[in-house]
Amino acid sequence: MSAAPPATRRDLRALFAPASVAVVGASDDPVKWGNWIARGALRAEHRRAVHLVNRRGGDVLGRPAHRSLHDVPEPPELIVLAVPPTAVEQSVDDALAAGARAIVAITAGEADGDAGGARDAALAARVRAAGAVLVGPNCLGVFDAGAELELVPADLPRGSIGLVSQSGNLALELGLLAAEAGLGFSRFVSLGNQADLEAPELIRELAGHPETELIAVYTEDFRDGRAFAHAAQAAREAGKPVLLMAVAHTEATARAVRSHTGALASDAAAIDAACRAAGIERVGAPQELIDLADGLLRAGAPAGRRVAVLADGGGHGGITAGLAQAAGLELPSLSPALVAELRAGLPRTAAVANPIDLAGGGEQDIRTFDRTARALLRSGEVDAVLLTGYFGGYSEYSDAMGREEVAVGEALAGAAAAGDRPLVVHSMYPHAAVAATLRAGGVPVFPAIERAVGVVARLAAHGERAPAGVPEVPARAAAVSGTGYAEARALLAAGDVAFVPARTVTSADEAAAAAAAIGYPVVLKALGALHKSDAGGVVLGLAGEAALRAAVAGLHERLGPPEYSVERMAPVADGVELLIGARWDARFGPVALAGLGGVHTELLGDAAVGLAPLHPEQALTLLLSLRAAPLLRGARGRPPLDVDAAAASLSALSHVAAAHPELCEVEVNPLLVLPDGAVALDARAVPATEGPA
Amino acid sequence: MSAAPPATRRDLRALFAPASVAVVGASDDPVKWGNWIARGALRAEHRRAVHLVNRRGGDVLGRPAHRSLHDVPEPPELIVLAVPPTAVEQSVDDALAAGARAIVAITAGEADGDAGGARDAALAARVRAAGAVLVGPNCLGVFDAGAELELVPADLPRGSIGLVSQSGNLALELGLLAAEAGLGFSRFVSLGNQADLEAPELIRELAGHPETELIAVYTEDFRDGRAFAHAAQAAREAGKPVLLMAVAHTEATARAVRSHTGALASDAAAIDAACRAAGIERVGAPQELIDLADGLLRAGAPAGRRVAVLADGGGHGGITAGLAQAAGLELPSLSPALVAELRAGLPRTAAVANPIDLAGGGEQDIRTFDRTARALLRSGEVDAVLLTGYFGGYSEYSDAMGREEVAVGEALAGAAAAGDRPLVVHSMYPHAAVAATLRAGGVPVFPAIERAVGVVARLAAHGERAPAGVPEVPARAAAVSGTGYAEARALLAAGDVAFVPARTVTSADEAAAAAAAIGYPVVLKALGALHKSDAGGVVLGLAGEAALRAAVAGLHERLGPPEYSVERMAPVADGVELLIGARWDARFGPVALAGLGGVHTELLGDAAVGLAPLHPEQALTLLLSLRAAPLLRGARGRPPLDVDAAAASLSALSHVAAAHPELCEVEVNPLLVLPDGAVALDARAVPATEGPA
Repeated sequence: MSAAPPATRRDLRALFAPASVAVVGASDDPVKWGNWIARGALRAEHRRAVHLVNRRGGDVLGRPAHRSLHDVPEPPELIVLAVPPTAVEQSVDDALAAGARAIVAITAGEADGDAGGARDAALAARVRAAGAVLVGPNCLGVFDAGAELELVPADLPRGSIGLVSQSGNLALELGLLAAEAGLGFSRFVSLGNQADLEAPELIRELAGHPETELIAVYTEDFRDGRAFAHAAQAAREAGKPVLLMAVAHTEATARAVRSHTGALASDAAAIDAACRAAGIERVGAPQELIDLADGLLRAGAPAGRRVAVLADGGGHGGITAGLAQAAGLELPSLSPALVAELRAGLPRTAAVANPIDLAGGGEQDIRTFDRTARALLRSGEVDAVLLTGYFGGYSEYSDAMGREEVAVGEALAGAAAAGDRPLVVHSMYPHAAVAATLRAGGVPVFPAIERAVGVVARLAAHGERAPAGVPEVPARAAAVSGTGYAEARALLAAGDVAFVPARTVTSADEAAAAAAAIGYPVVLKALGALHKSDAGGVVLGLAGEAALRAAVAGLHERLGPPEYSVERMAPVADGVELLIGARWDARFGPVALAGLGGVHTELLGDAAVGLAPLHPEQALTLLLSLRAAPLLRGARGRPPLDVDAAAASLSALSHVAAAHPELCEVEVNPLLVLPDGAVALDARAVPATEGPA
Repeated sequence: MSAAPPATRRDLRALFAPASVAVVGASDDPVKWGNWIARGALRAEHRRAVHLVNRRGGDVLGRPAHRSLHDVPEPPELIVLAVPPTAVEQSVDDALAAGARAIVAITAGEADGDAGGARDAALAARVRAAGAVLVGPNCLGVFDAGAELELVPADLPRGSIGLVSQSGNLALELGLLAAEAGLGFSRFVSLGNQADLEAPELIRELAGHPETELIAVYTEDFRDGRAFAHAAQAAREAGKPVLLMAVAHTEATARAVRSHTGALASDAAAIDAACRAAGIERVGAPQELIDLADGLLRAGAPAGRRVAVLADGGGHGGITAGLAQAAGLELPSLSPALVAELRAGLPRTAAVANPIDLAGGGEQDIRTFDRTARALLRSGEVDAVLLTGYFGGYSEYSDAMGREEVAVGEALAGAAAAGDRPLVVHSMYPHAAVAATLRAGGVPVFPAIERAVGVVARLAAHGERAPAGVPEVPARAAAVSGTGYAEARALLAAGDVAFVPARTVTSADEAAAAAAAIGYPVVLKALGALHKSDAGGVVLGLAGEAALRAAVAGLHERLGPPEYSVERMAPVADGVELLIGARWDARFGPVALAGLGGVHTELLGDAAVGLAPLHPEQALTLLLSLRAAPLLRGARGRPPLDVDAAAASLSALSHVAAAHPELCEVEVNPLLVLPDGAVALDARAVPATEGPA
């Protein structure tokens, strides 16, 4: 669609902090984009020259409007085009002629969808040739809090979130939700068609923007997903978490899927692989995004999963504790010394286990809340404290109680800061004055228990999960000459995937000779059928020549395959069968996958994905993230299996696949993991010509 | 703890709609319970006599207070006791002496926890002997919207939800959240210690209460869980959904667990089994409860999972569609005729697939929303419509637009009613006037996409999932004489669980004789060890006598078991191994369980539970609810297995377990399901004396 993005990062100062702005299409009509954008621009008239352009001239918003950009007395650094789609091309050319360093092309009226692809590429080329940058076309505008640049059709709250969004309405919703949480944006760029400026370049820019502490992205169209992942990784390395809201496409159903890997390493899974590699936090919807941003910006990640739940009332304590455990958090028992410390000053009936129920203690003495929280936060026995329930409601009693409650809120925030541990609050009264106090002091406050618990669990996961790292795709190897079973096997074997000894044969005599060389017992496979085991094309455990010849005869009669493979029978009862594979994703490049093999793989959906190629350690982490990992470690009295060998096989396969983009899917199913080594029992390669376009 | 509840339903009119009320402990002090309750009582002075009692006499809240109940001129039907815990017993006796038909015992001050168990039982006995009823002690009060009875310490919104809660603060939070959604309570009873009135009796009462359309329950203490399930089933049969918020206890870790069944059929799973049996909707937290209530009361359950997502903007459409699919909803393609109907009047760039993106069409003509929604709702092609995004924001433009938006809201509600299908709305502007219009018209409105989608998914599940039914626990059978392997096997075999032929032997000679009778190949098991396969106490596939004798010698040397079992080797490669079992739960009685057998059971957590005993059809439904169910139906070219035989075995086992409360756990692991039949390959029974107390 667009031209390849420039290799180096460009100077975007003219976009975010221009010395002068022109608005083309400025209007007095309060339902037009040209009106909203012009009013936004004029709000910073004290900081920069603002030129309004309207082809009818006259006055707009009380200022004389220029009839065209030619009439503007100085070259405006930034020009915003609020013009109909048909006028976009001419307007961009006019803007470049007028000396614009940055152009924001808003499409007033109907969106132009995909129709403008070729036009967009041509536009981008002209803009780049002029050394300028272009946002859009078909975008909503640009916002920079520090520069007081508000070229957007709505009031946006100011804060430290850098937002890049391909949807205007989702950006507006994020703004409303952020404002509700006392958060806001440092910068916002509406991506539009991404003719020139794409998400990765903007993410890198935000990574270097001091006022931006967290980056939020919504995109429908990743373009070069690897570049996206690299940019996000750079941002995370700069200490700025990247939160991604992406549409969970389901085109997998439309793709021609030729292997289990193809089905399991779906387009959605490829996004997950990129997130895992780059350390991106993926979220499903706007509220989840703002909640997680709230947690990351205010509380930060805890050092572990140990949480104390603190409530004044058994109901909130129990419900919150139950949800926390269900979310994978731990509620450790507290030490006798800490219990004794907490118990002093609490009612006789208070529960000082975890959850801690003040049992009316907070009602009797509101300072019980901060005393108890402080003891927990400095104890070293938990990594975070979750305060839940009624707190915030004391302001309902009287103004005096409300003031006392605010004082307690200050003490709570101080205790969290002093303990250097997150304190997260659920309050039934999120609009009480104390909520603002807590937020100002770095304590997130949520109006629903599930949201507070969900954020603490996400924060813990964020803290403990180091990004896998975004690998470089290796140079393309010489294309394979064929993708038959033997060729797939040879390709992978050359890449250091270990296979059982095997020979391809065409007759019973050849089979017998092969088996004699390999050694009995052997397995006989009919070649040519895609799912051999489905078609009954595999005969296991052939102990001698007679059995082998009978098996050849049987397969010949039933399936009439052109060739057979005679293979050493592996000790399957001694190990566990995995599926390992890789797929070339149109956006993210090669993606590797591992799962439990056999019939369980797709049924139980226990698969893990990562951007390929994987180092052996990355492959090991991937394998150990499977729910079935305990099987590899030796479940139920069985000996531990050679997980390192399995990881080496997965790594080797991922390197082979990454060097062969002409193969859309490569798979070993099963890989038999034994106490001493791992051995591939099958292989498959699907040429890209047979797979997805 | 409490005395057994009365067998018949009692008349609770004196509790919910008393002709007269007395408040003992009425106070002028605005931070005392006696003040809040008295003020609440006085709000309905126009409906009933209200007597205030304070031992110091004088005036309370501007009315003369009686010094004791003796001084009240008439017997008050309902007496509320706002007295310290130490005064509860005497106060209840005084109330009975004064002629109370109903008593609400609020504990002012410190809660009395479990200490009052014996006292509570004695209190309940005296109350029942007097023909009265008692709520509490240690409760928060009682509320009846229709009777204007507000004996609670806070304003509660009025509506059609009957609430029974063991936590006061959670009830207050539910009230705040309900009010936010424009919902409220028909009745509320704070359970407290449940000395006399317990949750089941109150649920049955609410089932018969015309103003109550939905029942919400929070409880920490189920007491007789079977009675609870029966009451909830009766309510659902009366057309009133029951929503349960229950603490997810994790005492399973503390319980002595002796089998996989014990571990998998946890206390939390027993609650799930009861919910499944009774058709109870279990929720995790207050917001989830109110959201689901909102959906059930306003929209009701759709006839299926087919949903159309309607948005003005691709971002909201895509995000909502993705979440909907992830939640198990279907987004069907629309027919050409419907597409043509929708396309007329939409912008050229509108996406008329599903999700439907108006692409600015709503902005150009706001009636596009109701025209499109109406066409979808009456099409018959979807079961529900999800409108998501900006709608609600047009009131931000101008008052005139706001009025038009309200008119569209009325039309949308009318379209949902006419189409007899749920319309559920997510709006970025949930406080706009149109939101109230939609709610009044039976359309739930949510401020977050995830909540709107979550509710539609829950509604669809509610509609499609018929309750399994709450079974009666059978009469107790004669206790077993022992719980060894052979005895467990015999017990289950007598109950119609099919086993492979087997004999118990003590020597190699006996083993050889047994095998000759049974027929080779055989399996040899060392008896006595609990986890035979973990200890390597099972030798499979013994083809002849020599191998058998060698196996006996090996086991003897390694494990020295007192006995062995010689069994016919089953064709394990031809079938799938399941785990079936049952456990006696302290609250819900016998609970049956099924899962995938072997090492996968606990690892993958794929287990389903149901209240025992199960009819064969119930057992079949349970088995087919497993994620692994496709394996039973014949996955990947394998023949379908005899699921009916497996269900019959599970049903048989569940009946045996339900008749033997002296066995806390009964298990068959594995049950081999074959194309033609199902056969148990092992058996275990754990005496209750060895299990949990």
